[in-house]
Amino acid sequence: MKIAVLGTGIVGQTLSGRLIALNHEVQMGTRDVEKTMSRTTGDNYGNPPFREWHEKNKQVKVVTFAEAATFGDIIINATNGTNTIAVLKMAGTAGMHGKTLLDLSNPLDFSKGMPPTLIASLCNNNSLGEEIQRSFPKINVVKALNTMWCGIMVNPDMIQSGDHHAFICGNDVGAKMKVTDLLRQFGWKDSSVIDLGDISASRGTEMVLPLWLKIMNTVGSGAFNFKIVRN
Amino acid sequence: MKIAVLGTGIVGQTLSGRLIALNHEVQMGTRDVEKTMSRTTGDNYGNPPFREWHEKNKQVKVVTFAEAATFGDIIINATNGTNTIAVLKMAGTAGMHGKTLLDLSNPLDFSKGMPPTLIASLCNNNSLGEEIQRSFPKINVVKALNTMWCGIMVNPDMIQSGDHHAFICGNDVGAKMKVTDLLRQFGWKDSSVIDLGDISASRGTEMVLPLWLKIMNTVGSGAFNFKIVRN
Repeated sequence: MKIAVLGTGIVGQTLSGRLIALNHEVQMGTRDVEKTMSRTTGDNYGNPPFREWHEKNKQVKVVTFAEAATFGDIIINATNGTNTIAVLKMAGTAGMHGKTLLDLSNPLDFSKGMPPTLIASLCNNNSLGEEIQRSFPKINVVKALNTMWCGIMVNPDMIQSGDHHAFICGNDVGAKMKVTDLLRQFGWKDSSVIDLGDISASRGTEMVLPLWLKIMNTVGSGAFNFKIVRN
Repeated sequence: MKIAVLGTGIVGQTLSGRLIALNHEVQMGTRDVEKTMSRTTGDNYGNPPFREWHEKNKQVKVVTFAEAATFGDIIINATNGTNTIAVLKMAGTAGMHGKTLLDLSNPLDFSKGMPPTLIASLCNNNSLGEEIQRSFPKINVVKALNTMWCGIMVNPDMIQSGDHHAFICGNDVGAKMKVTDLLRQFGWKDSSVIDLGDISASRGTEMVLPLWLKIMNTVGSGAFNFKIVRN
């Protein structure tokens, strides 16, 4: 499948790397290709510059947001949630009409220091997932996997043989089926994917981030996930 | 132990019933004792009027908020989160100084219909747990158990032999130890209680409510809980 990944940070890298290992054709979208490829500094979390990752993953083509969006049959939003709406406007959404957008991002606001809050206008009575769907009604937005560290997104078996849950929501049933199929390729069992209904449920999955961050601080690692336990 | 339970709704009833079964001395606080005892209608969830529950649990003394707060060595807040600050002011917090307040409540705002949001001023950059601690600095607020249905709070073994988690947070270590001891009596294993640090973590545990509600709608029951899965 042709898959576009918007965003070249660690989330975009992790998704792209896994997708090419699954023999998908991947293009990564970025604001300024030359700038992304020539950057010599890593991110704030100690990850190396993008070009080091790309050295080892050369079959991934790095293009503009607009080119990637036009290329992909499925588009994955791995941009910083603060920028997502602006990025999608820049990408020129005409190339995405009728397509599935898998939104992994969270509207984290680091502007007032740690721990981040959510962006106030995208919290409680709104969410980034809903805002994307409302802003671009011709794209089928599916929110999924945003409640966990990216390593687990693409390899659920890395903790407790995948015995934990992913949440998915969106207004278009066909788009959710496409994303569920992708999740299956990543290793998610159908019984581990909980469909919470329409895109308004992204309010719930995004608002879990403050708890996620506290748990990460407590257990000292992002390598955990939520499981819904019942009889 | 002498334990005060503020609030006579289903959460207060469930906690009080379990506490007397554990041989604690329990007083329940309410705004207007006579009104609570004479009410003939149940709540919006189909639970019978308070007096029917009290018929079977007569050793629980029903008193004013202020009397209960003075009586209890530990005070449990099982009031509606919308009213909690007003109730605590009414209770006269002098009787609670130096005591532990276990806060179970969530600042759910049903005023705009279903699903509820959180009260805007108690979300994202604040929380009810923090607001209580800030308003009443001489009380030791411990937020715990607010991420689950009340039946599970007092009987974790009812689902999957207790193999799931409770979160606890608060500024006073001694108060957290007292609450942890109470949790142990309810059946919580120490390994199932995750201490998230100071009271600011209640922001995270309260913000999980929108997801909790979506999951409840999806699985069709409140009899589930979160488990943090890791290697």
